Amino acid sequence: MNLSTATAAIDAAVDKAEEIEVPMCVAVVDDGGNLVAFRRMDDALLASVDIAQDKAYSALSLQMPTADLAEVARPGESLFGIHTTNDGRIVVFGGGVPLRSDGELVGAIGVSGGSVEEDVTVAEAGVDAFDS
Amino acid sequence: MNLSTATAAIDAAVDKAEEIEVPMCVAVVDDGGNLVAFRRMDDALLASVDIAQDKAYSALSLQMPTADLAEVARPGESLFGIHTTNDGRIVVFGGGVPLRSDGELVGAIGVSGGSVEEDVTVAEAGVDAFDS
Amino acid sequence: MNLSTATAAIDAAVDKAEEIEVPMCVAVVDDGGNLVAFRRMDDALLASVDIAQDKAYSALSLQMPTADLAEVARPGESLFGIHTTNDGRIVVFGGGVPLRSDGELVGAIGVSGGSVEEDVTVAEAGVDAFDS
Amino acid sequence: MNLSTATAAIDAAVDKAEEIEVPMCVAVVDDGGNLVAFRRMDDALLASVDIAQDKAYSALSLQMPTADLAEVARPGESLFGIHTTNDGRIVVFGGGVPLRSDGELVGAIGVSGGSVEEDVTVAEAGVDAFDS
Repeated sequence: MNLSTATAAIDAAVDKAEEIEVPMCVAVVDDGGNLVAFRRMDDALLASVDIAQDKAYSALSLQMPTADLAEVARPGESLFGIHTTNDGRIVVFGGGVPLRSDGELVGAIGVSGGSVEEDVTVAEAGVDAFDS
Repeated sequence: MNLSTATAAIDAAVDKAEEIEVPMCVAVVDDGGNLVAFRRMDDALLASVDIAQDKAYSALSLQMPTADLAEVARPGESLFGIHTTNDGRIVVFGGGVPLRSDGELVGAIGVSGGSVEEDVTVAEAGVDAFDS
Repeated sequence: MNLSTATAAIDAAVDKAEEIEVPMCVAVVDDGGNLVAFRRMDDALLASVDIAQDKAYSALSLQMPTADLAEVARPGESLFGIHTTNDGRIVVFGGGVPLRSDGELVGAIGVSGGSVEEDVTVAEAGVDAFDS
Repeated sequence: MNLSTATAAIDAAVDKAEEIEVPMCVAVVDDGGNLVAFRRMDDALLASVDIAQDKAYSALSLQMPTADLAEVARPGESLFGIHTTNDGRIVVFGGGVPLRSDGELVGAIGVSGGSVEEDVTVAEAGVDAFDS
């Protein structure tokens, strides 16, 4: 992960967010979970500043899309309570996706601002740009 | 609890984690809930760095395996919400186990990195080594 | 402050940082002190991820360049101790500068990664781009 | 940085601490500033649990020995106040040293428990083992 590839992923995510007309925050972290780049579109939800970064951190640190956490984090399921670990930085709904290069985890992208489905759509646009 | 016994418990836990081929983080705390030793196996989830330590803290500070918290911490049950106390350090799923010597609480071990069942299995290997 | 003007300021700052060959982190916050955009150049100090953001926050929230805080924050001076307020987010050395539009405070830029003088130089390049 | 090399560095540091008969805490972080391994010798200062980890984080995130920060962080010097940035994790006295492999930063070691000179001596024993 470097600034150039992170920027390409964010560019693509922001393009998609503009296309669906939902203002978003988009963050990319490296393989240590540290922020590489962040962008908040005009009028995006202020809460999304943190949520986008935390989704990226969650996807990186748990090596899975945050969407996959939704079910296992519910009351009665095996990982209920995981959303309060790591200083509350674990987000258990969609919008955070790991970024891999040649199969190796190199970072993650986090998107917040719309519905969970919209966030996932925008994050995947970022992943596609990163993969190509 | 001293460094020698903590190390023996972590050695056994890591051996078990290698045997089941799941990279783990393993932490041991003393009777004050303070970290004695910690080891992160290569490729372990980064989120597990905190979770392993917090599981050990939870098991020590509540004097019970964290697996026993899963049910009582659910909505509608008596301790719902406990996972957000203590600055969010209480983990309410398995992998943290108290360490006792002659029946007296002397510390705890916390394991994170696999499924809850795998974490419990590895933590118990650590407890067995500590007991013997 | 919007994403477009924040991006222009960061572009200019990063250009200057490349020119002086020091990898930097650059952050821009809006008039609420909330992050608008952030960029970490390759090989920048990891500590600068936080420091750049906190310099921007400091300059915005105190309505002055952080360089101006260096003297007054010293022991024996009037604001000694201010660097530990606001959850430790106040930085008392140069690199954070308010951004004004028609004389009104609209945000701030924060730069970290080099010596204090280098940080200030790069931040001012960002301010110049914002002003023009 | 992997667990094996981190362990070798900690082994050497603990050996040196035993030789000079000062109980220490020793931590190693990877290139993302995340904990790889930690050991607290019996009777080490409890405060050192945090300080050792924070020294390692400081050396990694600022890419220099923490001993080098002592002078520049003093009141009146250029980086006064840096010790309260990064959530207070920056330690500005000796005992944290970067670990490099073929000239590239790959992690850091942090030692706490004795005088600053003792901490530095023990940290350097760890670095020597890492380098060899």
